[in-house]
Amino acid sequence: MTNLHRHAPLRVALVGLGTVGGGVIRLLNTNGDLIARRAGCPIQIVAISARDRNKDRGVDLSPYEWVDDMTTLATRDDVDVVVELIGGADGPALTLARQCLTLGKPFVTANKAMLAHHGLDLARLAETGGTALKYEAAVAGGIPVIKGMREGAAANEISRVYGILNGTCNYILTTMEKEGRGFDEVLKEAQDLGYAEADPSFDIDGVDAAHKLTILASLAFGTELDFDAVATTGIRHVIAADIAEAAALGFRIRLVGMAQNGADGLFQRVHPMLVPLDHPLAHVDGSLNAVVAEGNFVGRLFFQGRGAGDGPTASAVVADLIDVARDEYGDAFAMPVAALTPQNTADAGARIGRSYLRFKVQDRPGVLAEIAAATRDAGVSIESMIQRGANQADGVLVAIVTHAGEERCVRETLERLAGSDSLLDTPIVMHILD
Amino acid sequence: MTNLHRHAPLRVALVGLGTVGGGVIRLLNTNGDLIARRAGCPIQIVAISARDRNKDRGVDLSPYEWVDDMTTLATRDDVDVVVELIGGADGPALTLARQCLTLGKPFVTANKAMLAHHGLDLARLAETGGTALKYEAAVAGGIPVIKGMREGAAANEISRVYGILNGTCNYILTTMEKEGRGFDEVLKEAQDLGYAEADPSFDIDGVDAAHKLTILASLAFGTELDFDAVATTGIRHVIAADIAEAAALGFRIRLVGMAQNGADGLFQRVHPMLVPLDHPLAHVDGSLNAVVAEGNFVGRLFFQGRGAGDGPTASAVVADLIDVARDEYGDAFAMPVAALTPQNTADAGARIGRSYLRFKVQDRPGVLAEIAAATRDAGVSIESMIQRGANQADGVLVAIVTHAGEERCVRETLERLAGSDSLLDTPIVMHILD
Repeated sequence: MTNLHRHAPLRVALVGLGTVGGGVIRLLNTNGDLIARRAGCPIQIVAISARDRNKDRGVDLSPYEWVDDMTTLATRDDVDVVVELIGGADGPALTLARQCLTLGKPFVTANKAMLAHHGLDLARLAETGGTALKYEAAVAGGIPVIKGMREGAAANEISRVYGILNGTCNYILTTMEKEGRGFDEVLKEAQDLGYAEADPSFDIDGVDAAHKLTILASLAFGTELDFDAVATTGIRHVIAADIAEAAALGFRIRLVGMAQNGADGLFQRVHPMLVPLDHPLAHVDGSLNAVVAEGNFVGRLFFQGRGAGDGPTASAVVADLIDVARDEYGDAFAMPVAALTPQNTADAGARIGRSYLRFKVQDRPGVLAEIAAATRDAGVSIESMIQRGANQADGVLVAIVTHAGEERCVRETLERLAGSDSLLDTPIVMHILD
Repeated sequence: MTNLHRHAPLRVALVGLGTVGGGVIRLLNTNGDLIARRAGCPIQIVAISARDRNKDRGVDLSPYEWVDDMTTLATRDDVDVVVELIGGADGPALTLARQCLTLGKPFVTANKAMLAHHGLDLARLAETGGTALKYEAAVAGGIPVIKGMREGAAANEISRVYGILNGTCNYILTTMEKEGRGFDEVLKEAQDLGYAEADPSFDIDGVDAAHKLTILASLAFGTELDFDAVATTGIRHVIAADIAEAAALGFRIRLVGMAQNGADGLFQRVHPMLVPLDHPLAHVDGSLNAVVAEGNFVGRLFFQGRGAGDGPTASAVVADLIDVARDEYGDAFAMPVAALTPQNTADAGARIGRSYLRFKVQDRPGVLAEIAAATRDAGVSIESMIQRGANQADGVLVAIVTHAGEERCVRETLERLAGSDSLLDTPIVMHILD
């Protein structure tokens, strides 16, 4: 089919040779002919770079030129595009990105942390440099959700975009759910299986999901990226009993990143939510990712797929390379940087919704009355309250589902109870997806 | 924000002013500012055309120039892109498409019938004319699945692409399922509600889904479009008892269009299938559409959303216009026409899978033995067989689920039973999605 190629090969420098880097090499080797037909030209890795040259990566690196100093790649005329897979918000990845974009070299990255913190600056450099900044792999792995938001849903005013953006958390939560086991035990197993990092905090504290949400929110609402505006809570405090109570009430617990646009501004939050069983997110199991976008003409769009791993992530990286080869790319965040509006952060307290509150309390008379009084005084209306004492070695669990109301009232409930010696633990609040 | 526009307005001629045409006008009026920011320029309708000028369409058409002879649009310098929403595989739509593309005028259409039959020719004209042929709205309405296949999954060898491609059929099947009602009754209701056409055959006989599948298959496999190679069966013969038996066995019935690539060629089929409850397609209810693509690196991608209606379809049409405004478009079927390979149609008989067979038979001794003997002689291995006599006014139902085996054996079973006076009706075969 080579006679059909309308362009010379696209020459790629690949920086970072971890799992995903190896996946990109394998993908281009395996699907090279098909990719050349689709891209209009072969896509060839010509140079590679990583921290440690001598590490065994399980792929044959001998066809590629090894480059010690990756910063030289930005200026090389025999490199058409640089792929960055080293990660980290700052440091070498950021330096390389700035160099490439400033010099007009197309830049493809999977680096959500860097984009969440510096995406606006990088998009500005790409614009000035007249080149591509592509990052499909940064959010939801193999699911083409960047393209779905930037292009597919582009005709819509989006009211909210949300989803399951971290496969590690979803694996842990759904395993807890299916097997009735505790968080620590399942996390340990996930680490042993390689599904969770030795230091899992980026995942389980919601930081990774918040990075991704920051990017999605900008695309959905035409706003400047603002990672600091994301209210982030992870899943460390979810216990097996929460999952059981939620199930009894017709919900499943998922770590949801949600950005919502309203009259009072933009609201971004990552936190465990109770998802009703009739919502598609309730059926996203294991390490899958999923994204929902709600537009004023398209209605609800739902994308699901594998959000991590070498294959899916490499699929997204190479999709970006095909776009570059086809010359089908434009503004990184769907519009010129100057057209992105600054975010006005909405007040969380004014948000209306139902909430789940769970208390671990002393098993003694009057505690339930104390909690009930606090909710009453804070103006929280209770839809259901369950107290379970049996089988609880350490106290009694009280789980409350509220009627829809302002979140400030829920917060006030907790403030009223703060310091009470009836409480054995910090109460947990999870909101309910409507 | 107009100072941020980098281009002059994109001037659109809109041909066809039915539901979707009205939706496009409303969408551009409602979201115009946001679209201008995303597209890099305002998108403005300048001319409109339809069969009947005097029909009341519920939208104000006075701002637009009315054009009686739509064929003049292809040559007008003050029209940058033509949107065709008149439908029909041949006739005026095809004439207009050929004129526009030949003259290098970008052409956006929602016309799946025309693409399924003439897509290859039109793509060739677009290529020669160096212009855009865009058709996101032709498949699965508002879901950006053309983009998902053409670009998002472009790095993958796709093994199969399949989905629920007709909202009318899905509405009928899921309503039958939820309410235990019969096909004719639910179809009548759907017609009264406007969910089904007065002449519903294009939908319920699977033709519409086959048009869409033809397009998806080309994108997925890099093959020439071949509508005639789609084996198509509709849902007329599905009865309430089939849905009940399927449910008892852990399945739901959906009209599935599937294209699968194998060693012996490409297989394309639209027919009602039994979908296991743990598959996401089993949870696609009402008039929703959904598409699954399985790639060798990305794994399983799942897209769901509204597949019809003015809002979602207009959303897809305007997404195409934004792509045109951004100059982000290329080969209509993801690669040059010359790179698309002719299809080699796989033999359906050699396909391996489980099947559901249902017979309406005489209530008399020996009939079950007759069916069992036919399956045995045809080499079909039975996983389960249910006979239900009660409440069946007209005979007895026998439902069989086979073990995985070659489809030719199932066909042979029916051939062996053909003409038997034990059968009260033509048996129905539905395959089981694995």
